[in-house]
Amino acid sequence: MDLSPYRITTEPYYHPTGHEIALYEHAYAHRLPLMLKGPTGCGKTRFVEHMAWRLGKPLITLACNEDMTAADLVGRYLLDTDGTHWHDGPLTTAVRHGAICYLDEIVEARQDTTVVIHPLTDGRRILPLDKKGEILKAHPDFQLVVSYNPGYQSHGKQLKPSTRQRFAALEFDYPEAAVETDIVAHESGIERSLAARLVDIAHKSRRLRERGLEEGISTRMLIYAGTLIHDGLPPRDSCRMAMTAALTDEPDMAQALEAILDAAF
Amino acid sequence: MDLSPYRITTEPYYHPTGHEIALYEHAYAHRLPLMLKGPTGCGKTRFVEHMAWRLGKPLITLACNEDMTAADLVGRYLLDTDGTHWHDGPLTTAVRHGAICYLDEIVEARQDTTVVIHPLTDGRRILPLDKKGEILKAHPDFQLVVSYNPGYQSHGKQLKPSTRQRFAALEFDYPEAAVETDIVAHESGIERSLAARLVDIAHKSRRLRERGLEEGISTRMLIYAGTLIHDGLPPRDSCRMAMTAALTDEPDMAQALEAILDAAF
Amino acid sequence: MDLSPYRITTEPYYHPTGHEIALYEHAYAHRLPLMLKGPTGCGKTRFVEHMAWRLGKPLITLACNEDMTAADLVGRYLLDTDGTHWHDGPLTTAVRHGAICYLDEIVEARQDTTVVIHPLTDGRRILPLDKKGEILKAHPDFQLVVSYNPGYQSHGKQLKPSTRQRFAALEFDYPEAAVETDIVAHESGIERSLAARLVDIAHKSRRLRERGLEEGISTRMLIYAGTLIHDGLPPRDSCRMAMTAALTDEPDMAQALEAILDAAF
Amino acid sequence: MDLSPYRITTEPYYHPTGHEIALYEHAYAHRLPLMLKGPTGCGKTRFVEHMAWRLGKPLITLACNEDMTAADLVGRYLLDTDGTHWHDGPLTTAVRHGAICYLDEIVEARQDTTVVIHPLTDGRRILPLDKKGEILKAHPDFQLVVSYNPGYQSHGKQLKPSTRQRFAALEFDYPEAAVETDIVAHESGIERSLAARLVDIAHKSRRLRERGLEEGISTRMLIYAGTLIHDGLPPRDSCRMAMTAALTDEPDMAQALEAILDAAF
Amino acid sequence: MDLSPYRITTEPYYHPTGHEIALYEHAYAHRLPLMLKGPTGCGKTRFVEHMAWRLGKPLITLACNEDMTAADLVGRYLLDTDGTHWHDGPLTTAVRHGAICYLDEIVEARQDTTVVIHPLTDGRRILPLDKKGEILKAHPDFQLVVSYNPGYQSHGKQLKPSTRQRFAALEFDYPEAAVETDIVAHESGIERSLAARLVDIAHKSRRLRERGLEEGISTRMLIYAGTLIHDGLPPRDSCRMAMTAALTDEPDMAQALEAILDAAF
Amino acid sequence: MDLSPYRITTEPYYHPTGHEIALYEHAYAHRLPLMLKGPTGCGKTRFVEHMAWRLGKPLITLACNEDMTAADLVGRYLLDTDGTHWHDGPLTTAVRHGAICYLDEIVEARQDTTVVIHPLTDGRRILPLDKKGEILKAHPDFQLVVSYNPGYQSHGKQLKPSTRQRFAALEFDYPEAAVETDIVAHESGIERSLAARLVDIAHKSRRLRERGLEEGISTRMLIYAGTLIHDGLPPRDSCRMAMTAALTDEPDMAQALEAILDAAF
Repeated sequence: MDLSPYRITTEPYYHPTGHEIALYEHAYAHRLPLMLKGPTGCGKTRFVEHMAWRLGKPLITLACNEDMTAADLVGRYLLDTDGTHWHDGPLTTAVRHGAICYLDEIVEARQDTTVVIHPLTDGRRILPLDKKGEILKAHPDFQLVVSYNPGYQSHGKQLKPSTRQRFAALEFDYPEAAVETDIVAHESGIERSLAARLVDIAHKSRRLRERGLEEGISTRMLIYAGTLIHDGLPPRDSCRMAMTAALTDEPDMAQALEAILDAAF
Repeated sequence: MDLSPYRITTEPYYHPTGHEIALYEHAYAHRLPLMLKGPTGCGKTRFVEHMAWRLGKPLITLACNEDMTAADLVGRYLLDTDGTHWHDGPLTTAVRHGAICYLDEIVEARQDTTVVIHPLTDGRRILPLDKKGEILKAHPDFQLVVSYNPGYQSHGKQLKPSTRQRFAALEFDYPEAAVETDIVAHESGIERSLAARLVDIAHKSRRLRERGLEEGISTRMLIYAGTLIHDGLPPRDSCRMAMTAALTDEPDMAQALEAILDAAF
Repeated sequence: MDLSPYRITTEPYYHPTGHEIALYEHAYAHRLPLMLKGPTGCGKTRFVEHMAWRLGKPLITLACNEDMTAADLVGRYLLDTDGTHWHDGPLTTAVRHGAICYLDEIVEARQDTTVVIHPLTDGRRILPLDKKGEILKAHPDFQLVVSYNPGYQSHGKQLKPSTRQRFAALEFDYPEAAVETDIVAHESGIERSLAARLVDIAHKSRRLRERGLEEGISTRMLIYAGTLIHDGLPPRDSCRMAMTAALTDEPDMAQALEAILDAAF
Repeated sequence: MDLSPYRITTEPYYHPTGHEIALYEHAYAHRLPLMLKGPTGCGKTRFVEHMAWRLGKPLITLACNEDMTAADLVGRYLLDTDGTHWHDGPLTTAVRHGAICYLDEIVEARQDTTVVIHPLTDGRRILPLDKKGEILKAHPDFQLVVSYNPGYQSHGKQLKPSTRQRFAALEFDYPEAAVETDIVAHESGIERSLAARLVDIAHKSRRLRERGLEEGISTRMLIYAGTLIHDGLPPRDSCRMAMTAALTDEPDMAQALEAILDAAF
Repeated sequence: MDLSPYRITTEPYYHPTGHEIALYEHAYAHRLPLMLKGPTGCGKTRFVEHMAWRLGKPLITLACNEDMTAADLVGRYLLDTDGTHWHDGPLTTAVRHGAICYLDEIVEARQDTTVVIHPLTDGRRILPLDKKGEILKAHPDFQLVVSYNPGYQSHGKQLKPSTRQRFAALEFDYPEAAVETDIVAHESGIERSLAARLVDIAHKSRRLRERGLEEGISTRMLIYAGTLIHDGLPPRDSCRMAMTAALTDEPDMAQALEAILDAAF
Repeated sequence: MDLSPYRITTEPYYHPTGHEIALYEHAYAHRLPLMLKGPTGCGKTRFVEHMAWRLGKPLITLACNEDMTAADLVGRYLLDTDGTHWHDGPLTTAVRHGAICYLDEIVEARQDTTVVIHPLTDGRRILPLDKKGEILKAHPDFQLVVSYNPGYQSHGKQLKPSTRQRFAALEFDYPEAAVETDIVAHESGIERSLAARLVDIAHKSRRLRERGLEEGISTRMLIYAGTLIHDGLPPRDSCRMAMTAALTDEPDMAQALEAILDAAF
């Protein structure tokens, strides 16, 4: 099995917001299953890519969803002209050959997915392939990482305590203003001063969460806006297109976001 | 793979209502994922066809619905006399060969569809084909465009914030009266003065939304009515058949629409 | 592909109630998608058969239901001893070879069905066969017709505005008394005077809708009753068997219908 | 196709309660679709068997249920060593070769089943085999009969008006006391006087429906009890075992039934 | 077909609580469909095994559940290297070759299962194999027996009256104290006096049903406890482990059960 | 069949909290089905592994979930180039060859799973393989063990009484402070005094259950924290990462946990 497509060969840009790199390294040293908690677009996926690059391990990422079955993770028998043969799923590939397996938005997964990872996340570190009659011991390099956005718990989906308890956790948030300004300037190519104004807009939008906005403007949206401005579009148009138009359909909330833009430009 | 069936060879008629063509070109220059927001029949699909023609890129359109699976988008193994072989889905075709992929009415899709596009809409621009064990890097020409009708959010379906935040957005509405009149006259062949009367009826119907009509008369319906009038049908019959009879089943609302026709002819 | 089984070779009896034949011909001239609205058993299906015969076009009829998939309409790959080959569904057959495709009771269909018809019902007139990688341009003779019973909207199923707006509409109702009398006499063979008494019963039953009867006695039921009377059964027995016994299970409503029969015979 | 397994060669015992045999014959003469309405165990199935024997037509009976698909009725392609071939379902067999098709408890069927019978129950008398591309004209001997228990409508399942209106209907009830006594005596072998006492118990139980019993003791249960008594079991034991023990789990209702037995023996 | 695995060759221990053996024999003599009603663990399954042994008939037992399909009962076509061939399901095996078929917990079955047994439980005694085009007449030895726990009706699942009415019924309960003591002593090997104390605990627990305990301690649990005591475990530990620990999770109820044990030892 | 992958060759560390080892051995001596009740992460899985090692029996563990079918447990026919052949599922393997079968979190299983085990857990000790037509007598070494967390019953899932009553039960809880301290020190390598401080934090967190925390800090989480501390991470960081960050998303509860850490370090 060739894991090279899963190796990250160039350093993914990541600007630390605390000592999360050291904490991850300690967790990886003991192969503790790790949960990354935090809002959308704050950098969790980028962080795990950065850590995979830093540790020199292949990374297999799976976006969880309610239509993904246990077989999609673990594998299945496929019919061939020579009969059926077993096909490892991506989780099994990671367990067998020693990759970091990253289950993005674990809370979206169905129960059969979350239950599959239980024997991988306690002292056993095994993956039973029931249909194949094999008990797979995890490769020493294997680690399981999941991401989780606590802001969605209102949607009725929650992690079961018996799953939560299997993970050490790192909490993420949008970076501090100065750091976020650096990131926006670096990734979009605009001036730091202009980046700071965009970050200020984002901060104001995040405060609207108390008034009912589901999520504020993310770092990723700031980078989109900066890119368009750098490309020559007027800042106001760029901000509306990249930051506020997609964010809400509520007329009141849209007006509040518009007012923030009014104040900024 | 021959993308020529997806190429648009004759210019689709599109009458701009603002500088949306320039905004789209900026977004395409950076391959920003783009969301087109607006009511039914206001020209979003025509716009993306026009832009694909203008940019000279093939366009693969998919109407989202709750019965479409991730495999319908990404592809699957098909059984053949020579065993199974992989068959790229339409999204994969667009990603691999560099088309614009347009997901119409994204909000109707199931979670596994919307989650599939996540790694295509951040810095990674990849499409993991988990079942095939391939991580597909997007072709430089690939862009993802989705459409979204915010007026439907009352039906209980909404885009998750983690999906919304991945898109820059362009907001559409029915064109201004003068522009809409031009369009109706151009497409149906009737006089501008008659087209203006039809547009006036549409405007009055759209105001009925405040009284509970789900959507007003669209530009497309005006063109239907104009076509029938141009063909010799009496205007009143044409308007009832093409504009009001299909629009509602509520007796009150039907009467209100009838009254608008009474006033017009 | 041989469409001859779908050709209607003998004129289906149809008694016009207005100028609906001319309106249909105008709509067909421009291949406008057409919606036939009206109550059960008032003659919508017969009308579209009559028009297909009159226009000399093959007619492919599909009864929509919530278990019909998009593949049932569009087609699928079937496994053969020579491997898989594509099998056009009935909608695709109509689009490719130029039939009128009639989707009966469109509101019963699932979303993936109604979404499939969208690109056939705007300026594009195409049917994308995503699984086959083919974009099928509609044959010049192809027209889409749907039927819709607005009386059922209380059952929670409605057409989405984005679907409604794609259709010109013809409204049907039970024919006027004199016309309905002609139809019943013609189809059952009874005297016109007796037919008039049956039609009078039907009219009284339809007024019960205000008191909660879901639908009144249809023209079809009158023809059944007339047929039994013509065959020698007593009128009262014939009316109970063919008109009232099937119509309701509510004791109050059954008694009201019985009282109407009492008054008639 | 050999329909002989579906032919009824010995006369099924049926005791008419009115002129339902003549009414059925008239309906069959015109092949009117027929609905048999009435409570459980009152003889609807026996009646249709009797009529099939009397008319000398094969009878194909299908018990409707919510897990029966349209393909179960109409047929499907089956995979063989020689590739796929079409396999007529039981409804198609009846339509093609001229049997009476009896859909027992039609209200339990899913929508795709009830919709399938629509074109068989109007002037067309056709069964479109969409997947096979065949439009099957009904054999002249084919008739569709359905049964329906109106007492269940409280369970939330109802026939759609558009289905009801396609049927002439015969209403059934438990036979009158004298007739029911004859039937019980004839089928179980007990004396007429004893049979009369059993029938009296049944009548009292049926009055409990007003107090909440879902259904009273049916004719079939009376025959069971008579059979056990004739076999030497004490009447009280026979009645409890065959008539009351199965009927309810409510302590109050069980006590009321017990009191009826107390009074009888 | 070899039914020998379904034959019971050694007498299953069964202690009658009334004349249920004679009642069963009368029912079997006429092959009346039989329903065994009673609480969990009171001996219904053992009784039917005993009767099958006594009558010298093979017994095919099926535990009903909501995931069991009609095909699981009746049979299906299986694909082979020589094409497809029909495979009788366990119910079909019983009907064809003359076994007693015992459907345990019939109320858990889905509708398609309960409907399948209808033509087997009236005068027809047939099993239509629709997919195979065969109408199977029941073997003279075939009898259908179902079990049913009326205590569960609160879970929203009930037998339809049209199913109930097809069965004669035998009512079961836990045996009287003296009989139950005999059974516990016989099966576990403990002294009769000790067995009597266990039975007394069970009786007290069953009275807790009025206070909300779902079911009291069953005979089977008493035998477990007796077995552990006979094996040398202290009675208190044995009773907690085998009788009370599994029975409830409610702290109040657990305390009440504990108090019963306190009083006993 | 080679069960050696299921044999446990090195003693799993287990610190008894009472005489549960003796109780298990008595239950195993009579092959009583056993239910292990207790909260997440208190050592139930470790205990059953320890007992399998102690008794020298292979152990087949299955994590129950609502997407696991009866066929996943029992087995199925698989298609091969030589036709179909039967493939024993993991439960069948345990029953046929004599392993302990451990169904983890039985309450998560669907009904068809729990019903499958019924004939294995009464006097019959059989597993009917209906699809294969085999009645499998359990190997003398076979025992069924299930785990069950009563704290979850609020999630609407409960074991049916008819399932509960088939098991003897052992109740587990987190170990007493001294024992838990020993375990944490032994498994993580930290000093006993530091381990005691961690255990004290866990005890305080468990008391928060009365204030709404779903579950307190488990022994497993204490070991994670101890491991990180032993590795050089500051205790406070280690405790947040391994013990509190994953446990809750409620701001109030998170603050309460933080206050416990404040008091400890």
